[in-house]
Amino acid sequence: MENNILDFDTVCLSEDGEGIKIIDQTRLPGEITFLTLKTDEEIWRAINILQVRGAPAIGVTAALAMYVLSLSMPKTSYADFARVFAEKKAYLDSSRPTAVNLSWALKKMEKVVLDHEGTDPSELIPLLKEEALRIYREDIEVCHAIGENGLTLVKKGDGILTHCNAGKLCAVQYGTATAPIYLGHERGYNFRVFCDETRPLLQGARLTSFELVSAGVDTTVICDNMSGMVMKKGWVNAVFVGCDRVAANGDTANKIGTSVVAAVAKQYGVPMYICAPTSTIDLSTPTGEEIVIEERKPDEVTEMWYKERMAPKNVKVFNPAFDVTDASLITAIVTEKGIAYPPYTKTLREMVEKE
Amino acid sequence: MENNILDFDTVCLSEDGEGIKIIDQTRLPGEITFLTLKTDEEIWRAINILQVRGAPAIGVTAALAMYVLSLSMPKTSYADFARVFAEKKAYLDSSRPTAVNLSWALKKMEKVVLDHEGTDPSELIPLLKEEALRIYREDIEVCHAIGENGLTLVKKGDGILTHCNAGKLCAVQYGTATAPIYLGHERGYNFRVFCDETRPLLQGARLTSFELVSAGVDTTVICDNMSGMVMKKGWVNAVFVGCDRVAANGDTANKIGTSVVAAVAKQYGVPMYICAPTSTIDLSTPTGEEIVIEERKPDEVTEMWYKERMAPKNVKVFNPAFDVTDASLITAIVTEKGIAYPPYTKTLREMVEKE
Repeated sequence: MENNILDFDTVCLSEDGEGIKIIDQTRLPGEITFLTLKTDEEIWRAINILQVRGAPAIGVTAALAMYVLSLSMPKTSYADFARVFAEKKAYLDSSRPTAVNLSWALKKMEKVVLDHEGTDPSELIPLLKEEALRIYREDIEVCHAIGENGLTLVKKGDGILTHCNAGKLCAVQYGTATAPIYLGHERGYNFRVFCDETRPLLQGARLTSFELVSAGVDTTVICDNMSGMVMKKGWVNAVFVGCDRVAANGDTANKIGTSVVAAVAKQYGVPMYICAPTSTIDLSTPTGEEIVIEERKPDEVTEMWYKERMAPKNVKVFNPAFDVTDASLITAIVTEKGIAYPPYTKTLREMVEKE
Repeated sequence: MENNILDFDTVCLSEDGEGIKIIDQTRLPGEITFLTLKTDEEIWRAINILQVRGAPAIGVTAALAMYVLSLSMPKTSYADFARVFAEKKAYLDSSRPTAVNLSWALKKMEKVVLDHEGTDPSELIPLLKEEALRIYREDIEVCHAIGENGLTLVKKGDGILTHCNAGKLCAVQYGTATAPIYLGHERGYNFRVFCDETRPLLQGARLTSFELVSAGVDTTVICDNMSGMVMKKGWVNAVFVGCDRVAANGDTANKIGTSVVAAVAKQYGVPMYICAPTSTIDLSTPTGEEIVIEERKPDEVTEMWYKERMAPKNVKVFNPAFDVTDASLITAIVTEKGIAYPPYTKTLREMVEKE
């Protein structure tokens, strides 16, 4: 790789300030392609087909999107502007169901509009830009702080296993689960990282291993079913994964297979750490039971990526995009404000309310 | 599927009695093609390129092969016959040098020749046919008995999860892990079966789900990392898997990922059953520690089946073909002679020694 991927933002405003620039993650690791998204349909599609993915990156994309789209909303009156703003917000909100950051960021942007009722649209636009860039910068700062906190949990030479991509490519710069890895790498920790390939969409093989190798980290790809073997061999000192939503009791929704890694980690006494910006902690969701899990199309399992179909035509396929890891399997939840340990019902609330 | 796969043997003598009829497993699940193998080269190649695969099926193929090939061996004298017999045996033995059942079956056939030194070749041939058909029938009987024993562990309507292919396609008729499923299916048990796709070679998606669907079993393919989700949902009442070797203490080597399924099953209180002909119980191996695990080529993980490479070129890959499931994670080991429960050091010995 000629370019160190850490030199680029995963999501940012385009150079002309009128679009969103993203790395097209559907083309990795074969091709590094940047896209500039300008229309609501382009943005909806980019989120829906995972050209941009990962809860934090989706949040930043949604925030930047509402600013970019506001540039072409009606300037005739506050009411006209606010009505179209609400329509576009609802439209983008439908692009992916499980990630809380999407609606979180959209609500933050909407609040700018609602808090300035009656303001002339031309004055709202700079405020929306300011808020979107604040969310963008905050992501960078939050991930960096998660990295600092997570780094206190491991030591030089440790083996770290991660699942899916909670890396740079799911956020703007450091990622969440990879933030301790990148910070440690900069400081000579010499981690050995194992990436679950993460079927069916292969984010671990395609994305995480790509970004880690690009950054010079010692990286080994394994199939999802090999975690038992590598943990039994004593090669893994800690698991770091990201999350899509943390319920008030600590139950955590993350990429399908996370609960499998957690059960295996428990079996072999390996600590299981969830890296979670406090924005993904949803105190209004009491437990994992209430988290709606997106089911995706069967052909992602049976056909996608392959030269030919790899299962009989008439077989059923179950393809949930996420699973919920029980709080009892989670050693700690690493946030930008500190590390939450059980009992999570108490510590997560404290973490969210902490200044 | 027009034809119920259970109506066919995976391996058997051809209708004219002069060849071996197999289902070409390299064409599955896309095409159902039967091959008739008559020459030593055809048989060698079929085993070598996995047109026929699975330890029991390879053993039966080798046994039938020595009979079929004997038909055209020199009838001039015992010495001439035995010399060519030894040549053909050595040749077939080289088709997959690591498959234990291959040399086991070839030795059984050779013993017929050696035990009848000086006998006229025309009298040896019926004896070879008898031995080959005995090995063939024994496979069917052993699998059937495993099925009967396994079936006592489940009830009508149960959900069953299986990993890799320990199915009909690895034996002659019922398979090992699938034997309880097929017997139950014939008796109206209405099982719901979940097949782990089984990365990287996809035996679960390509072979197990194919044979189960063909037989009319309610079958759902999942990625290996989805077992946590389906077990948490309460959809799985039992796990049935095959095995490659069982150590004297019950530690079991089987397809990579089996130990992950076992850890997840333990987490959710699902019983974990190993289906094992007593021929796979190796009392001379004290524990799983002594079992050597084959590592296979990285490109099986990163390239095989795919339209393009799915990981960066310079990443490391770990690709063990098997893992060892700790005896403590195994609820019971189902053999043709009965069901062994812990403590396995005692019960497995009893099982092997039982008449």
